[in-house]
This record gives sequence, C-alpha cells and structure tokens, in this order.
Amino acid sequence: MYRDRIRLAALQDRIMSADAAAALIQDGMTVGMSGFTRAGDCKAVPFALARRAAADPLQITLITGASLGNDIDKILAESNVLARRLPFQSDATLRRKINDGEVMFIDQHLGETVEQLRSGQLAPVDIAVIEAAAITETGGIVPTTSVGNSASFAMMAKQVIVEINTNMPAALEGLHDIAFPVQRPYRQPIPLIAVEQRIGLPYIPVDPSRIAAIVLTARDDSPSNALPPDGETRLIAGHLNALFEREVRAGRLSPSLQPLQAGIGTIANAVLHGLVDSPFHDLTMYSEVLQDSTISLIDAGKLRFASASSMTLSGPVYRRVLDEIERYKSRLVLRPQEISNHPEVLRRLGLITINTALECDIYGNVNSTHVGGTHMMNGIGGSGDFARNAYLSVFVTKSVAKDGRISSIVPMVSHVDNSEHDVDILVTEHGLADLRGLAPRERALQVIRNCADPAYRDGLLDYFRRAQTRGGQTPHLLEEAFAWHINYREHGTMLPAPRAAAIAPIEATPLAA
Amino acid sequence: MYRDRIRLAALQDRIMSADAAAALIQDGMTVGMSGFTRAGDCKAVPFALARRAAADPLQITLITGASLGNDIDKILAESNVLARRLPFQSDATLRRKINDGEVMFIDQHLGETVEQLRSGQLAPVDIAVIEAAAITETGGIVPTTSVGNSASFAMMAKQVIVEINTNMPAALEGLHDIAFPVQRPYRQPIPLIAVEQRIGLPYIPVDPSRIAAIVLTARDDSPSNALPPDGETRLIAGHLNALFEREVRAGRLSPSLQPLQAGIGTIANAVLHGLVDSPFHDLTMYSEVLQDSTISLIDAGKLRFASASSMTLSGPVYRRVLDEIERYKSRLVLRPQEISNHPEVLRRLGLITINTALECDIYGNVNSTHVGGTHMMNGIGGSGDFARNAYLSVFVTKSVAKDGRISSIVPMVSHVDNSEHDVDILVTEHGLADLRGLAPRERALQVIRNCADPAYRDGLLDYFRRAQTRGGQTPHLLEEAFAWHINYREHGTMLPAPRAAAIAPIEATPLAA
Repeated sequence: MYRDRIRLAALQDRIMSADAAAALIQDGMTVGMSGFTRAGDCKAVPFALARRAAADPLQITLITGASLGNDIDKILAESNVLARRLPFQSDATLRRKINDGEVMFIDQHLGETVEQLRSGQLAPVDIAVIEAAAITETGGIVPTTSVGNSASFAMMAKQVIVEINTNMPAALEGLHDIAFPVQRPYRQPIPLIAVEQRIGLPYIPVDPSRIAAIVLTARDDSPSNALPPDGETRLIAGHLNALFEREVRAGRLSPSLQPLQAGIGTIANAVLHGLVDSPFHDLTMYSEVLQDSTISLIDAGKLRFASASSMTLSGPVYRRVLDEIERYKSRLVLRPQEISNHPEVLRRLGLITINTALECDIYGNVNSTHVGGTHMMNGIGGSGDFARNAYLSVFVTKSVAKDGRISSIVPMVSHVDNSEHDVDILVTEHGLADLRGLAPRERALQVIRNCADPAYRDGLLDYFRRAQTRGGQTPHLLEEAFAWHINYREHGTMLPAPRAAAIAPIEATPLAA
Repeated sequence: MYRDRIRLAALQDRIMSADAAAALIQDGMTVGMSGFTRAGDCKAVPFALARRAAADPLQITLITGASLGNDIDKILAESNVLARRLPFQSDATLRRKINDGEVMFIDQHLGETVEQLRSGQLAPVDIAVIEAAAITETGGIVPTTSVGNSASFAMMAKQVIVEINTNMPAALEGLHDIAFPVQRPYRQPIPLIAVEQRIGLPYIPVDPSRIAAIVLTARDDSPSNALPPDGETRLIAGHLNALFEREVRAGRLSPSLQPLQAGIGTIANAVLHGLVDSPFHDLTMYSEVLQDSTISLIDAGKLRFASASSMTLSGPVYRRVLDEIERYKSRLVLRPQEISNHPEVLRRLGLITINTALECDIYGNVNSTHVGGTHMMNGIGGSGDFARNAYLSVFVTKSVAKDGRISSIVPMVSHVDNSEHDVDILVTEHGLADLRGLAPRERALQVIRNCADPAYRDGLLDYFRRAQTRGGQTPHLLEEAFAWHINYREHGTMLPAPRAAAIAPIEATPLAA
C-alpha cells in the first residue's frame, strides 16, 4: 500500500499505528520532531504520545525546528510530557508552563541548535519523528512544508519515525535542498552564493535500517495566524519603502535591493506585502519562513526567487500553493535551518533583514522575547542569526501596545536579545530612525523623535536629558530605567498619572521607589 | 635614500616631513589610521596633526583597526581633533571625552567596520595613514605589527600617507596575508579552511599614484599593558584547563582542542599562559591579537600556529620577536581584521573563544563595555564577533573588583553586549559555570554557586529566590535589578550595609528605593 509514497518496498512492513510508534519513545529520551513555524509538524505521533502519557507518565526533551502547529505543544504540555523544550515555541499553554518554571526552555538562535548537537554539547537525539511526503527508493525522506532541523534529527537519531502525510502532494519532492557543513576539522566553505542555488539532495539521506516506524496521516498544517495588514503596518511598510528608495537613489542599493529576510508575524508579513506596489523588481528572499506575502510578491511578478526553511501560509493560500506546487517549485526552495540561518551564507549574501521587536530602547537595543523583562513570549528565533550578519538590519514594531498603555519605545529595554550593535534601522508607524554610524546619544534623538508615540515622546526626551547630566556613552538613570515597566506592572499603564501629567508631565513619571 | 624600504623608485619624491603630510588632512575629513591594540600605529603624522590643530583647529572622524598606542588617542583628544571615533579605543583621556559627550564614539564589532565602509553605509575614508615596513616594487604596502583595517583604508581612500618605520625589521615582509571577500553580488566563499593557510598577498596592493606622502619614522610600538598572571588568574586558567580535560575525556575535543581565540588583556593572556603546563599539544590560535602568552606557547612547543590581526607584546618579548622574526614567521600570520573576525571563517573553524567580561549576571548575560551601565570603558571589540560564532564561548572575569566592593556577578547586568545566547562557559577564580543546554533558572544556580564571590552569594541567591516567586523564564525584580549598582554609585560598595548585614544579610541588600 502507498507504494508511490513508500518507494523502498522493504520499508512497507514498518507501517504501524501512531500508538505503536509512540511506544518507541521512552521516559528521559531526547526527541527531535519536524516542524518549523507551524509547518511540517507531525500530525499523529505527538498525540499518541500524549494519550500514552495519561496512563504511563513519561517526560522527554523535545527539540524541533521552531514552533509547532496543531496544538501539539499545548497537548504535550498539558500531558506533562515536556521536561525540556528547545529552541523555540509559540503556544500559550506551554508558555505558561515555561514561565511557571515547570518546563525548562532553552531559547536558542535557530541556526545553532544542530551545531551544538553535532559537537555533542547538547544531549544526542534518541528518536526523530519526521513528517514526510514520501520515502524514496533508497530510503530518503522527502520533507513536507518545512525542513527545519528535520534532516539533522533524522541523520543523527538512533531511530527514526516517519509520518507520511497523504494530504501533502507528492509533487513536493524537488522543493527541498538538503545540505550541511562538512564535519570539522576539515570543514569546507558552504558553496551557496545565490539564493536560488541548490547544493544538496532533494531528500534526507537516511540508512533505511534506522527507520523504525512509518505512520500514515492525512491532515493539514495549522494555518498562519498572522493578521492582515492594517493602517499602522501599512505606514511602517511605507516608511521602509521610502528608505529603500533613498538607498537606491544614493547608489547603495540596486532596484532589486538585496535578498530579503522577514521574521514570522503580522508586521514583517505586512512590510513585505508593501513591496507589491513598490518600484522595486526582481527581488529575492533568503529567509527562514515564507508567509503569504512571499506568494503575493511572486504572483505579482516582483519576487524572482525565495529560499527559506518553511512555508507558513493562511488557509486559502496554503491550499492553492500546495495544489500548484509544480509551478511554484521553480521559485522556491526549502533548506535546513542551519543553512537558511547560517552566518557564513548570510554575511556573504548581504541581506536586508526585517524582524519584529517586542520593545526597543532609545539607544536601539531590542527585546525580542521577554514580556516585562521576565516572561518568555516565543523565543529569539532567527532574529539574532539574521540581524547580526545583515547588510541592513531593520527592526519593526508598532509604537504602542495595549491601547496605548504600553510604549514599545522605552528608556531601557528590560531584556536584550539584539544589541544596538546589530540594529541599523528602527521603524514604527510614526517614522523611521536610521541609526547607522551614530553614537548612542545621537541614536536616542532619532529614536525618540521619529519612532516613539507622541504620548511618550516628552517622557523619553526628559529621561534622556536628565540622564545626560550624569554623563556616559549611553546615559541612563539606573534607578528609573525600568520605571515605566514597573508602572505598567503596578498600575496597568506606562503613562504618567493624568493628575500629575497636567502639572509636570515629566517629573510625574513613576519611579522605582 | 631608504631604497630597501621604498623599492618603487618613483615614490622617492613623495618623502616629506610629518608636518607636510599632516597638511593633507582637512577639517571634516574621515581619516583611516593603522593600529590595532597598540600595535602598528603611526608614529609621526598623528602628532603633527595635533601640533597643527593648536594653530589651525580642525576636527576629523578617526577610524582605526582598534586601540592605538603612543598616547595618540590622548594627544588627538586633547587637541580637540576628534569629532567622531570608531570602532574601539582604550585611552583614559579620550574615554573621558567620550563619556562627557564631547567625542561621538561608535562602538562597533571589529569585524564589521569595513563591511559598512565598503557598502557606503559609513562615510568614505578620505585619507589613510598607514605604518609600513616597506613599499614594494609595485607600490604595495608591507604592514608592520598589525594589519587591522589598514589594507581596506589604503585601498579605499582617495589619498594614502605611508609612514615607513625603520625600527621595524624589513623581514616583517611575508608575515601578512592580505585578502578580502569579493564584492557583492558575486561574493564567493572565503577559501580559508585552516589557521595557517595563506589566501592573499604579503602586501597591501595600492595604486602608487594614490600614495601622496611618505614619512620616515623610527619608533617602537607601545608595549602591552597586560599585567603578569597572579593567583586569581592562575585559578581561572586552572578551572578552564580542567574543563578542557573533561571535554577531551568525553570525546568532544581532541588533545589539540580547537583553534583558540583570546581577547586582549590580563586575564585572557594569563589563561593562555596556563596552557604552557597543560597536557594539550599541537595547539593553534585564530585570534585578533597575539600577546606574550602566544610567544610563550610557541617557545614551549605547545602552539603549532597562530593567526591574528596584530601582535601586542611586552617590551622584552616585543624586541626578541622582532629580532627573530624570520624564525617566528613560520608560526605566525597577520590578517585584516575583517578576516580574523569574519563570521564565515570563525564558524567554519570552530573556535574556543576566551573573552573578558566587565560584569556578568546570574543568567549569563555579559557586559563588556559600560561601567555602571553608562560609561564606556573600551568597546565591544571582537568579543561579539567571536562569542557569537564560537564552538565554545568562554567569558572570564575576577569575581570582584575594587577590593571586593564591586561584584562582577550581579542580578542583572547594567548593559548587555553578549547575551546569554552566546555565553557557554563563565569562569572566575572561584570556579566555572557550564551553561550549555541550560535554561535561565538552571544557569542562575550554576553561576551563583560556582562563580560568585562568597560575600555576594547569599545576596544573589536571595534575589533569585524572590524573583522566582513572580515567575518567568528569566525571573527578575525590576525595581531592584540595579540596586547593587545604585548602592555602589551612592555608597561606594555593592555590599549591603554592615549594620543591617549582621541582622539579616539578605533583606539588607539596598533596594532602588
């Protein structure tokens, strides 16, 4: 059965139920599962594992590419299966358990996990659970809508469970390019010099004897939960397009710009959508995730080629792209995240990177992960991989959150993921701060004047002015650096109290005391 | 005259006085000068420029490789010549002007400056001032004890001033390897796959018509100001050697370890000295600066080869190495800092990086630059280049400073240069925290128990314990996160007040209020 999907006949006898496959996973094991930003996750074994845990409690370390869909992280967290989780997640239930200290979460650069596994600095993967569109005649695994860390997991694990998802078109074969850096000490250059280049195999090469189980599924990926562009994200896109036009006029960029990277989520997706009506053409992408905007740009004839590690699309776009995958395959490639996020390739290609800041301070330091400085949102993801090695590192955010009660621009970020060294451009709906070549005191004026919401601008300027009286390369008043965060925690707003504001808007900024 | 040093006869007529050469520098220009961690800086033109400024005030943007010796930054700062300075410095007078906001200092990753110049994102270099051992028959410039950014400055600048330093042996020729990434959009892999490999030219290729002046000097580099190893740095070296031995036993490292990088300064130098009596052999270095310890390791037969961008040695070692440079040349190469610090090469080679932290927090975030969170010490230097791309990223620091009144381990660092994502190992004289694969709550216990000074351990544990009650991936109490820094600022110590300490050592920790 499913001879077109399991082309190595000898593997036919490994087909079993998800429950039987899940029984291979033992308490204390490290499990590597496919899945990257909701795309290409496994659709059966994780649920069987959760069911089993109800009767037979067990705990595992779960490593993935990035976040999972289909509520897998939620269900595994609720079943108390997760002792440790890395390198990224985006599920509300798991997030709560992480922040309660019940699940140890290792928040990693997405391009580094495999490097640490390969060198034995993380415990080895015992079992890999990988979604596939097919298994080739040689036992090669054809991934589905993401590659992520799947190839490394499958190649390193002692045993591999393959989920063949018949909802995925067999024509996905040929979309992927599976390649890795050669082992040290004789590691060679990664020969990738153009986004469209293929340097590897269209499948994951695995010794078939290590394929311990094959499980059949027929279920779609969870659709993207990015919101459609709105007035503010359109303004952000507009500011960025205007910058690109200035750079082209100055001769620093061609009308094809540089290869684009955009982080997962609503704002980055909207910024790319904004390029549909721009004067730029023959664009390329070298990113970790492709969203609806990528498809829109291809359909509009703007985007020549896109490389990534996953495709995370909304329902209707997802179905259409899968149905027409033969056509889109000439424009797309999915790679291991070690290659999509590799510093060597990123620095060589010279990307324009567009990532979302949770909050940003007046000097351009970015918090990408920790709400209030303490509570994990999703993880740093690829933002550090990309920003650190970018030709032009852009961070985007709306200037306020929670109906204006939180300013995304603060005196000092409560957690630093991407430091001022790695932030060239900051954009909010109010404007754009071009921080290139500026010292911190100069950066502050740009950020406050161009990016902060008017309701917070005076407060930021006042902080900066008073901090300067104490001197320093990066002036701060440590005793009130987090006063806004503390005010939000205690009073539900970063805004100064209205009564005091009427008299002396600045002095009223609540202090730590 | 000096035909052996100026081998292109047509350039003989460009010899002039330092004052005449300095007259080529105009107000408002961007000047790129040789010099990297006190090595290979210019010995005449900077002083002529300062003399001229006394009568004819002018201000420039000064870019170098890294810090300068011979009090150049001091004298230029005192003469008010410096409007902007990048990417690194280590002079007390300049530091004061930077912290007073009088000189705009752009603190950059040392591997990135040239990338930004090349893409036009920093203003172009008008004049390069480069120290040389010789000029070849084709006008090629043979650098001296550092390469730094000299090659890029000389190749990009409209005019080049060369200082021929006859104190430098002509035999330095052949020590350097000048190569760069190919321009985009057709940038190729950097073909460097081994520390000893040479991929470029032994001189800086320059169109001789752009050599506008040649100045003759005869003066040594400033000696290194690293202190000799002491009891505490020997303990740090011992903890690190023990880790390496464990890694070798676990099969994760060979007895040749991986190529070593060590930051400038006393502690990193001492750690390398500690390898002289270790069981490891056939070691290699791929670093940005070579210190005395490198020479000791070569002399001891421990170090097979060392690649860097500069040599910063103490007086006696400096003279001996220069006198015997023919012999040492088979073991050493100096490269442009873009190559010595390039993410592509670093990730490929897989370095053990050893850098110094100014302070570190309980979660492993490192402040490399800002005293009290505000005042610049020297700059991030190469620490971010190396730590971010390391096989094993080590940070070292003494657990206390100022006779114990400052704890180098704090609840929250007051500035983040290297985030917890990029810190694998933290070492103080008290011990070593192995943070690989740990979540922040696990990291905190390691750091507090193994690295903090006993006088501060209870205070850190108490902070951590109370912060945990509020939950979070990275528990903090924002209102007292900087209480220790504030206490030091106000009372000259991070230690709790003795009176209160006798009763309740933990609650007495001074709060922000």
